[in-house]
Amino acid sequence: MGVFKREDYKLKFDFNYMMDEFIEGEGILEKELKAVDFKSAFEKVKNARGKGMQCWSELPYAKTSDIDNIIDYAKDIRRNFKYFVVLGIGGSALGPIALQQAIKHLHYNELNPKRRNGPKIYIEDNIDPERMSALLDMIVPEETLFNVITKSGNTSETMSQFLIIFKILREKLGDGACRNIIATTDANKGNLLKIAREENIKTLVIPDGVGGRFSELSPVGLLPAAVAGINIKMLLSGARYIDKLCSSSNIYKNPALMAAVQQYIAIGKGKNVSVMMPYADSLKYISDWYCQLWGESLGKAVDLNGKTVNAGQTPIKALGVTDQHSQIQLYTEGPFDKVITFIAVEKFRTEVKIENITSLKDLDFLNSSLNKLIDIERRATEYALKKAKRMNRTIILPEVNEFTVGELLMFFMLETAYCGALLNIDTFNQPGVEEGKNATYALMGRVGYEEKRKELEVNLIKNPKYII
Amino acid sequence: MGVFKREDYKLKFDFNYMMDEFIEGEGILEKELKAVDFKSAFEKVKNARGKGMQCWSELPYAKTSDIDNIIDYAKDIRRNFKYFVVLGIGGSALGPIALQQAIKHLHYNELNPKRRNGPKIYIEDNIDPERMSALLDMIVPEETLFNVITKSGNTSETMSQFLIIFKILREKLGDGACRNIIATTDANKGNLLKIAREENIKTLVIPDGVGGRFSELSPVGLLPAAVAGINIKMLLSGARYIDKLCSSSNIYKNPALMAAVQQYIAIGKGKNVSVMMPYADSLKYISDWYCQLWGESLGKAVDLNGKTVNAGQTPIKALGVTDQHSQIQLYTEGPFDKVITFIAVEKFRTEVKIENITSLKDLDFLNSSLNKLIDIERRATEYALKKAKRMNRTIILPEVNEFTVGELLMFFMLETAYCGALLNIDTFNQPGVEEGKNATYALMGRVGYEEKRKELEVNLIKNPKYII
Repeated sequence: MGVFKREDYKLKFDFNYMMDEFIEGEGILEKELKAVDFKSAFEKVKNARGKGMQCWSELPYAKTSDIDNIIDYAKDIRRNFKYFVVLGIGGSALGPIALQQAIKHLHYNELNPKRRNGPKIYIEDNIDPERMSALLDMIVPEETLFNVITKSGNTSETMSQFLIIFKILREKLGDGACRNIIATTDANKGNLLKIAREENIKTLVIPDGVGGRFSELSPVGLLPAAVAGINIKMLLSGARYIDKLCSSSNIYKNPALMAAVQQYIAIGKGKNVSVMMPYADSLKYISDWYCQLWGESLGKAVDLNGKTVNAGQTPIKALGVTDQHSQIQLYTEGPFDKVITFIAVEKFRTEVKIENITSLKDLDFLNSSLNKLIDIERRATEYALKKAKRMNRTIILPEVNEFTVGELLMFFMLETAYCGALLNIDTFNQPGVEEGKNATYALMGRVGYEEKRKELEVNLIKNPKYII
Repeated sequence: MGVFKREDYKLKFDFNYMMDEFIEGEGILEKELKAVDFKSAFEKVKNARGKGMQCWSELPYAKTSDIDNIIDYAKDIRRNFKYFVVLGIGGSALGPIALQQAIKHLHYNELNPKRRNGPKIYIEDNIDPERMSALLDMIVPEETLFNVITKSGNTSETMSQFLIIFKILREKLGDGACRNIIATTDANKGNLLKIAREENIKTLVIPDGVGGRFSELSPVGLLPAAVAGINIKMLLSGARYIDKLCSSSNIYKNPALMAAVQQYIAIGKGKNVSVMMPYADSLKYISDWYCQLWGESLGKAVDLNGKTVNAGQTPIKALGVTDQHSQIQLYTEGPFDKVITFIAVEKFRTEVKIENITSLKDLDFLNSSLNKLIDIERRATEYALKKAKRMNRTIILPEVNEFTVGELLMFFMLETAYCGALLNIDTFNQPGVEEGKNATYALMGRVGYEEKRKELEVNLIKNPKYII
């Protein structure tokens, strides 16, 4: 790419079709933007940086030696293992999956070893027994490095996966089992850490103040990325670049703040759905990562004053152009309840020409390239939605590479933090998952959950008439 | 499985937690069910069977000779080709993907050839140039059967893919190129059919009156399934079985009708989001298929009287337990705007034990199996949602196999048809996608779209202030 100029890879945010100027009667007026107290939200986020649960904002500024350390681990793994498996769920899996898909070959594991030039990678974020069994069909455990990722060190799903794998490794490798595991977890607490210490398992630390959904730029995401051969320094550089661009409290200079303010206004106008629709297969799983970030951060029962608000905007993953043939009918004609975010890629990493060699003149309009067609279809869809007065906005990436993906991740994390501040909620907790966790413990017979079990025994009785 | 008894594989519909009896103040009362004119909706769907765009309902009753014909084709392909590629988008891809994932090994393409016992399969439902290039890295075109699927024979994306592949095949195989292609399309019209006739390409017919999203039980879905070694007769048998179960106008005897009536009531109560959340990786892409079916069928601007209604309920794909760590916080605490559908699997096709061999007693509660854990987590989540008074319902499959997946597909198609009838809309058209298609033609310079191009030239001008 010649000399790398950061400016050439700047993410752009196009919000034309959010504005009333373009979707009259359904859009946002400039005066509505001004009426939002975005300066307070900006200050709130800025002042909390590096404190409490907002240490994620400092991850792009990690010490070089820490990053080099991860890169060294990754080199070792690439040299010594044929398979690399992440055991994790939620934030411990969504980021690694997204990054892998964005940067590496779309059929990475199927490439021949020489071209792949690194271990096969499996990211296991479920406890479906058929899935675990399918994984075990694919790998040779002795030749596999298992990266167990859980911040708390107690996540039931991840610890179950770990126990299954640990037993297999122990049977095959005896005391050497520990060499096939790296635990990414808290520095001081949790069951995984205890086991790691006891069993001499190598650990990587997830810094304090970094929640799962904000952890992709920590060792959680960096080790799997580096193992795949992804340039993690460039990733962090992109994150720092956009972070700097977003250091202004002027919404016209801070794209993440502008984006958040508009979403906040849109929520107020009844848009309870946020569709994330990249026009690139490589960015497909960025949507999944975004869905956790946006959904879990903003979906809150109470605000910071304890008032019941049942806040939140439901995120949806979509893929352009694929979902034009699935969801666009609904987006165009259905309820006015959505904000649609396109992600556009200006330059794909390859070009594929289309040439009509049949005798059908009617297909001559396709004499072009897939590159041009996908770009035109995105613009056509954007236009059709605008014409139907549906709020939509576009994030433009000059190309998909480590730098721009770093920008994208940081952009969304900042937007989320700003939007949470505007909604006056705790963006960084997740109290709503406790009930399900406790019910699981109770039903699994965990000691200490006897009361909960009694509650369940009474309450799980159903009316047989309502099962048909 | 011993003697196959259909009753043992009956799909069950559990709607306890839709009812006010369980989620007081937020649920449905029995009298609300009775107040819906579901008998009319039932009759409307019943009387339209096999007419207009409702011929999908007759697909499970296809002639045995037609099905045998597809099976014979599939046998030939399995014998003669190393790779099988579907070129299609929307309904031409979502069904094949869903079925493949449900029935076959989760890493099917990565299996060694002997265990896979069939060609590698790629289903290509996008026009991303990087994706096409990645596909071409994976296959040897001369050893590949390309199944081009488009009902209209004019879908821009599919025809572009076809042109690219056709040129490659022609260069490599000359006139023999036609032997590597099967076109699944309309019997009488469209560009693909014209080319097929001219180039001597084999065709399979998509019957009249079957729209893309209702076509999985036609040759669209059946050929790819049979090529993968899926028992398509069993699939159709399951569809017929549930169809029969749903032949009553009594909602307590017709699960699809009951489901539709409740969704209709829920929409009326402001639940504009429908989450589809199977607890099985094998059913993950059933959600994608459902999202097109539900979204595109019910998302309509006008009703049958021409009145503007902007109907629709936005479908969301989720996966249990994975999305408990991503979306459940929002579902539990966020807006009361959702109906959540779980799909439960009673018996997985394998068992994976969990055994705690570490010294940590605190993990002993996991001494069990993934099978038990995933089931308990689903019930715990269901309970937590119920406690938070969120509407949720569960479809129970005794096992995932061809028969039960046939039931599931038919169940959702019937539910969709009933719900569309209740909403008094045209369930089977998609007028909202025309604007985007036409804009694409115009921007690609297609003859006949000069006026549209002028319209776009004026209207695509943006305000540079709104791009930051």
